[in-house]
Amino acid sequence: MILEKKKIEEHNAVLLEQHQRKFNFFKQECDTVESLVSKLQRFQIAIPSWALGTGGTRFGRFSGKGEPATLEQKIEDVGLLHALNKSSGAISLHIPWDIPQHVEKIKELAASLDLQFDAVNSNTFQDQKGQKHSYKYGSLQDVNPAVRKQAIDHNVSVIQHGVTLGSKALTIWLADGSSFPGQLNFREAFQNTLASLQEIYKNLPPDWKMFVEYKAFEPNFYSTTIADWGQSLLLASKLGPQAYTLVDLGHHLPNSNIEQIVSLLLMEGKLGGFHFNDSKYADDDLTAGSIKPYQLFLIFNELVEGMDHNGMDHATALGWMIDASHNLKDPLLDLLQSVEAIMIAYAQALLVDRAALKRAQLTNDVVQAQEILQHAFRTDVRAVVAEARLRNHAALDPVKLYQELEIRNLLITERGENSIATGL
Amino acid sequence: MILEKKKIEEHNAVLLEQHQRKFNFFKQECDTVESLVSKLQRFQIAIPSWALGTGGTRFGRFSGKGEPATLEQKIEDVGLLHALNKSSGAISLHIPWDIPQHVEKIKELAASLDLQFDAVNSNTFQDQKGQKHSYKYGSLQDVNPAVRKQAIDHNVSVIQHGVTLGSKALTIWLADGSSFPGQLNFREAFQNTLASLQEIYKNLPPDWKMFVEYKAFEPNFYSTTIADWGQSLLLASKLGPQAYTLVDLGHHLPNSNIEQIVSLLLMEGKLGGFHFNDSKYADDDLTAGSIKPYQLFLIFNELVEGMDHNGMDHATALGWMIDASHNLKDPLLDLLQSVEAIMIAYAQALLVDRAALKRAQLTNDVVQAQEILQHAFRTDVRAVVAEARLRNHAALDPVKLYQELEIRNLLITERGENSIATGL
Amino acid sequence: MILEKKKIEEHNAVLLEQHQRKFNFFKQECDTVESLVSKLQRFQIAIPSWALGTGGTRFGRFSGKGEPATLEQKIEDVGLLHALNKSSGAISLHIPWDIPQHVEKIKELAASLDLQFDAVNSNTFQDQKGQKHSYKYGSLQDVNPAVRKQAIDHNVSVIQHGVTLGSKALTIWLADGSSFPGQLNFREAFQNTLASLQEIYKNLPPDWKMFVEYKAFEPNFYSTTIADWGQSLLLASKLGPQAYTLVDLGHHLPNSNIEQIVSLLLMEGKLGGFHFNDSKYADDDLTAGSIKPYQLFLIFNELVEGMDHNGMDHATALGWMIDASHNLKDPLLDLLQSVEAIMIAYAQALLVDRAALKRAQLTNDVVQAQEILQHAFRTDVRAVVAEARLRNHAALDPVKLYQELEIRNLLITERGENSIATGL
Amino acid sequence: MILEKKKIEEHNAVLLEQHQRKFNFFKQECDTVESLVSKLQRFQIAIPSWALGTGGTRFGRFSGKGEPATLEQKIEDVGLLHALNKSSGAISLHIPWDIPQHVEKIKELAASLDLQFDAVNSNTFQDQKGQKHSYKYGSLQDVNPAVRKQAIDHNVSVIQHGVTLGSKALTIWLADGSSFPGQLNFREAFQNTLASLQEIYKNLPPDWKMFVEYKAFEPNFYSTTIADWGQSLLLASKLGPQAYTLVDLGHHLPNSNIEQIVSLLLMEGKLGGFHFNDSKYADDDLTAGSIKPYQLFLIFNELVEGMDHNGMDHATALGWMIDASHNLKDPLLDLLQSVEAIMIAYAQALLVDRAALKRAQLTNDVVQAQEILQHAFRTDVRAVVAEARLRNHAALDPVKLYQELEIRNLLITERGENSIATGL
Repeated sequence: MILEKKKIEEHNAVLLEQHQRKFNFFKQECDTVESLVSKLQRFQIAIPSWALGTGGTRFGRFSGKGEPATLEQKIEDVGLLHALNKSSGAISLHIPWDIPQHVEKIKELAASLDLQFDAVNSNTFQDQKGQKHSYKYGSLQDVNPAVRKQAIDHNVSVIQHGVTLGSKALTIWLADGSSFPGQLNFREAFQNTLASLQEIYKNLPPDWKMFVEYKAFEPNFYSTTIADWGQSLLLASKLGPQAYTLVDLGHHLPNSNIEQIVSLLLMEGKLGGFHFNDSKYADDDLTAGSIKPYQLFLIFNELVEGMDHNGMDHATALGWMIDASHNLKDPLLDLLQSVEAIMIAYAQALLVDRAALKRAQLTNDVVQAQEILQHAFRTDVRAVVAEARLRNHAALDPVKLYQELEIRNLLITERGENSIATGL
Repeated sequence: MILEKKKIEEHNAVLLEQHQRKFNFFKQECDTVESLVSKLQRFQIAIPSWALGTGGTRFGRFSGKGEPATLEQKIEDVGLLHALNKSSGAISLHIPWDIPQHVEKIKELAASLDLQFDAVNSNTFQDQKGQKHSYKYGSLQDVNPAVRKQAIDHNVSVIQHGVTLGSKALTIWLADGSSFPGQLNFREAFQNTLASLQEIYKNLPPDWKMFVEYKAFEPNFYSTTIADWGQSLLLASKLGPQAYTLVDLGHHLPNSNIEQIVSLLLMEGKLGGFHFNDSKYADDDLTAGSIKPYQLFLIFNELVEGMDHNGMDHATALGWMIDASHNLKDPLLDLLQSVEAIMIAYAQALLVDRAALKRAQLTNDVVQAQEILQHAFRTDVRAVVAEARLRNHAALDPVKLYQELEIRNLLITERGENSIATGL
Repeated sequence: MILEKKKIEEHNAVLLEQHQRKFNFFKQECDTVESLVSKLQRFQIAIPSWALGTGGTRFGRFSGKGEPATLEQKIEDVGLLHALNKSSGAISLHIPWDIPQHVEKIKELAASLDLQFDAVNSNTFQDQKGQKHSYKYGSLQDVNPAVRKQAIDHNVSVIQHGVTLGSKALTIWLADGSSFPGQLNFREAFQNTLASLQEIYKNLPPDWKMFVEYKAFEPNFYSTTIADWGQSLLLASKLGPQAYTLVDLGHHLPNSNIEQIVSLLLMEGKLGGFHFNDSKYADDDLTAGSIKPYQLFLIFNELVEGMDHNGMDHATALGWMIDASHNLKDPLLDLLQSVEAIMIAYAQALLVDRAALKRAQLTNDVVQAQEILQHAFRTDVRAVVAEARLRNHAALDPVKLYQELEIRNLLITERGENSIATGL
Repeated sequence: MILEKKKIEEHNAVLLEQHQRKFNFFKQECDTVESLVSKLQRFQIAIPSWALGTGGTRFGRFSGKGEPATLEQKIEDVGLLHALNKSSGAISLHIPWDIPQHVEKIKELAASLDLQFDAVNSNTFQDQKGQKHSYKYGSLQDVNPAVRKQAIDHNVSVIQHGVTLGSKALTIWLADGSSFPGQLNFREAFQNTLASLQEIYKNLPPDWKMFVEYKAFEPNFYSTTIADWGQSLLLASKLGPQAYTLVDLGHHLPNSNIEQIVSLLLMEGKLGGFHFNDSKYADDDLTAGSIKPYQLFLIFNELVEGMDHNGMDHATALGWMIDASHNLKDPLLDLLQSVEAIMIAYAQALLVDRAALKRAQLTNDVVQAQEILQHAFRTDVRAVVAEARLRNHAALDPVKLYQELEIRNLLITERGENSIATGL
């Protein structure tokens, strides 16, 4: 299903007057509004192919309806999102769930929807049918060289799929770890992982990046072999200049100060990208900004500060991706809500008066530093985010338009009730 | 030091035009604005006497300057805050730090500053000079009846002090617990505590409430005898209708869902009041709303919902108090920031479209429920909070006025650099 | 497969001399050894039917081999465990995974293996094929009375299945909760849950107990409707004398003091039973005692103290069950390790010198209290646990015998490699 | 007060027969007992001077009696401990609390008690009287170069004090961080800290080590500038070969896998030493092994494995120190309990059958790996630890002898009731 431009124009026409009143009010209070809008217009957040279906927990999965059953349908779903918000102009594929059969047709489809192919993701945390060796006890870390070889080969083949599509990065998330004390020799698990990553790294095209993701726990419950930013940075440093750390918001121990980690990784030139989501207890994969919106803002505050300090382009220097599992909501609506929350946090971070903040910091004026950050966060920036969409010919209110057009029902009609996406 | 009305009027005159533009914009978007303003005008948050000085940690205390050294000066400090924001119209005293010597003069001073005496607080977590028995191993829980008796008597005397001042509630926070396995018989510690509380309860005037506070840990590091809302509720239920649970935001285990606890305590008719602060790791006692403003909003969302359901008056049915320890900031500025954050959260909670939320809940429309809450939270309500202040003849921007008038310097001039407040 | 007595006798004959040397040494140091052995002989821990197969996580499931595919085979598996350790003399069934087709044959089989039917468990956290209403948004809490009715009816039918088998308790664990702020009205969710439980309670035979389990989070990720012991106790109190709280070790927020909860529930006469497992991060369902064995001991220390204080029979007054999900280990070996760890913790708790501990507590002798508990915990009690097994005609070293007899291979031969158990 | 050898001999004479029965039993089961005893005899754990007095919390301090008021008395206290257990043969001084006035006399005193001077500790987390600049907002991180200079100079002077005494390492623990978002530029705080450490490093004698300690939070409550092992390792790597990471058990986020961190730091050749204590909730500084003895064992398991792999001498290659704050117990008894728990964990780690564990790991035999670790942990090794003491002419039961001799009363008689130690 393709969203007609006319639908968006009609929707915008109805909301325009109200929008302009709000945007004009915002403009009065903010003299950098044009720069802000143009940065927001350029900012794109990749949608992972696995987030288009309904996820589940180990206790059960309550499927949604009209899910995309093929790669083409997944790309169409992202096309729908991008048409609605013009901020989701990329898709991140997951191999083997999304192996393209007809590469050229797939590329044409994506191009027709104005979509890029973002980082490709390998999967060595599940066994696939017909797979020779099991990943039950690990993949790149495994004590058995044949298991490691199989996992390395898989990653190399993922790179090759990515090259045909025009991706420029490989994201490696490993479930590797242990569930019981004694199961693993931590040092050897780390060294096996490093040696395996080095093999994969050799196969990286020169203009590619490798993102090394970390996670505190789950699915292993005693140790994870790449458990925190320190371990990921150690690996990325040993691997070479194309290797970077990827931060997933849900992959931390309770109370972690993620914004500080972000700042230090930028300082080291080793932040590669982001997986956005939110969580209250563990790796819950909830909608970005749904639980801790201030933390999301503080992270963007560090991103903007650090990227500007490094002279990096906000829109392109890092990989921006959503990684969430939608168990209860329509995945497309959930993704619209995530993107909106991310754009709001980014806009608020852009509003921070950096010169004044620097002055407050240099005089240890803690009260003033807080006032400056809270002022930006308390400002209602929705109108400026909407204005960026308007100028990009997207919908002023994507969630509302999605609901008014009853897009899910149209997808169910098109695909059937029991269409199920591959993924978790 | 007393803040002249003229100073406030001059300050407001300068900011008025800008304020009105913002408030008018807000009014256009909100048709319940008058009801909102009037609720905000009535809402008062008590200031604890111990928060007027600079706190410290076990590693050190870096004193501020010009701290209030006497009860009179503490009341004057709260008077200053109240003059600035007209939302801090009560002081919560802590005995023995704040035993009034001349009750009538103290009452006159408070009345002249438009201040009430909120809940009085007992202290059995420290030994006072000349005290017969030590609280090293507990107070109301202690294995020694003489220790318990001393702690009971202290609480009774706190009630008596409170009666003379016009307080209507006793807040009991106990450090009682244990630091090592085996130190305590949990059952007997609970039963001793209950029996002691029952003795105190007998001395409660009929129009008084007893607030039973809980805390997960610290200063005891293995167990706390009133450790969670379940234990507090159990005690309050056994004590009788005048006993209630008091919720302190910083007193929970990591990731606790405090808003759910609030809702259930209101359901049981056993929520007594609140200690506001914020924290990232433990009982950090940071400025309210400085770390998790969305959580603060969600708590107010439950408070408004539950109080309206019970037909309770927002302003008076519960005890609203700040409880925070200011280590790095000027305490008065910190308190202004806390009050502002609380008023913002309350205003946002009042903005929630309850009928629409109920409809979304009854249809399991999770996306819409989130939209409704996020809409309220993302709305910039600062103008409406300021309008409430304006109508109450307080300052449009209390923090700014405090800074412009250099009030801390005036206090230092008045009191000297080394004036130090009693407290933690 | 049935384990021949001869195999056990042969195994014990080989190990006997070594065992007796150790047991004699233990006896020399402990003058209550006979009482200890006889308590251990009587102590039985129920095995849940779902723990006999390999579990999984939301990221994947790596099946084991030779899993029990039918209820008969599950009972046989527990029979094997019980033959090996004579401490696993009960099975806890899970409906609808284990609906008995031929009740009398099932009962005969269980009796022939010396097994009781422990608490029966309902399941309203998954949708079953052909089910009219979905539990996607809850079951006993749901806003739709028809959903609640369906869940109530299911629980009533579980009771009926239990009655035919001779069970005496119903365990209710609810996944009910919410994943996003606003999704749920907490108060109404609680009240719906209470009303539903009251309906079920009415159907409880007079000699039955209802166990109300709580869990901090998962599979819902923002709130759980029975989230902690306080909420469970509130429900159990409102329900009546047959309702009790069930404690699952893995269902708590980080750092919870579970032993204190146990003590207080015993004080209130409302502790119903236990689900044993262990965890490091979240509800990890690891082998009991594999991560925090001292915590397990401290819990048993409170159990023994509280049960003795209440005059309760250790072996029968509470429900003792394992609840764990074995992802990496052979489930039968894992269960043997869990039972061993539980027996050790129980034996150590029985070793605690209660009179001396009481004296230390009454004099606030914290050092001595710690010495007393640590002495019990540091004592190697494996010989006395083995002696209890020996006298019960079980194996001196169940894990070793299981491995020597290659029981898993025999089961694979019998059942086939791809035999898969129902469950998570 | 000096403990006479005769007292120890008398004590041992009484307990000898019982001890030998236990030790002989142990010997029968363990063929490496002689190697074990000799390793235990050599293992020494430094006592920090600040742990000899009663600590406190921010809520209060309940002083003990007979505390050492001078450096000489502190050294005498450690001498007492060492006489009792011959495992505490070093003292770790804290400047400025313990500046030696008469270096030669101090050295003679220490030598007479068989004590070494372990790492010296600087203090830039408190302001000292007469100090020019305050550390309120940080020390080595501060935005003001003059503050940093003062803190650097202090550390250099600490090195000089250490040199005169024969210390060989400087431990730097920084309270530096921030309590509110925006207060700090994380990158610049890190870089200031690095530059300051580099200045200090330049002043390190060639045979010295610098230990860079990390801590997740407290006394700053939003960020700590050296917050985790990753940040410490980054600094140590940039500083050079004499800089190492120091691990304090209480300085981690909830649920951290500390044993894995230990293994990786050993892999990188960057583990410098240890601060032993225990905790349940936060940085509680409880007696080592009093809450999580299995974790302590697992840490020693990694230490032994990693040190053996690197060919490091257990007794001397790393710094072993206690760091705990005794609020409720007699500090000397608490320290005896800590040392005992550490020796037990070390002995158990030495018992692990490394060849069998390696075989289990190489075959992913998770059950067996657990059996091997649990066997070592469940073994009662107290007799072998006592035997090491016996051969070192220390007491078989130090806690008991301390109590029998009523050493605290003797110290009170000698020093008076109100003698108070410097420290927290």
